[in-house]
Amino acid sequence: MLNHPQLDLVFQALADPTRRDMVERLGRGPASVSELAAPLDMSLSAAVQHIDVLQRSGLVRSEKVGRVRTCRLEPAALQPVEQWVGARRSSWERRLDRLGDYLADE
Amino acid sequence: MLNHPQLDLVFQALADPTRRDMVERLGRGPASVSELAAPLDMSLSAAVQHIDVLQRSGLVRSEKVGRVRTCRLEPAALQPVEQWVGARRSSWERRLDRLGDYLADE
Repeated sequence: MLNHPQLDLVFQALADPTRRDMVERLGRGPASVSELAAPLDMSLSAAVQHIDVLQRSGLVRSEKVGRVRTCRLEPAALQPVEQWVGARRSSWERRLDRLGDYLADE
Repeated sequence: MLNHPQLDLVFQALADPTRRDMVERLGRGPASVSELAAPLDMSLSAAVQHIDVLQRSGLVRSEKVGRVRTCRLEPAALQPVEQWVGARRSSWERRLDRLGDYLADE
């Protein structure tokens, strides 16, 4: 499997419960930075740092209109994660199948 | 969705290409620490540190017999990741469906 530097950033971005909450929130529709920060017990600047990590991973993009920055999810950025995890599962299932065949032959 | 501290550790463990390589290798069967370290351009002690991170995440367990520590994959530890990513995808697809319905009504 090819190495995928973006995969590092996506896994890293998802390794934090606050950032996963933000991704879940954005899955329901775009939100401003304040709307993302509101349900979280943290300062706006702490929220902005988490949003930056999400943006670098490609999971989120944002656009500033006037004084409001609106964030949107980029669901395609989750695909490499799904593919990697899916490939591990199929490889593991093939191994179990071979073990099953071996035990059946015995 | 419930918070899942183990999910932090699994995403963290997978955010590194060396550790993903180790998981891929262990998907083909158990391996000793030296076997895991051999194809990687790193010291044995650096490899052990990566293995420790994988063990703390629950993705890998190991057993020492004599002087040889053998590592095995715990594929069940990938399930929470699959579930989380899958839930995000379904939530996103439901949103697209609603948007499609709305556009069809217009």
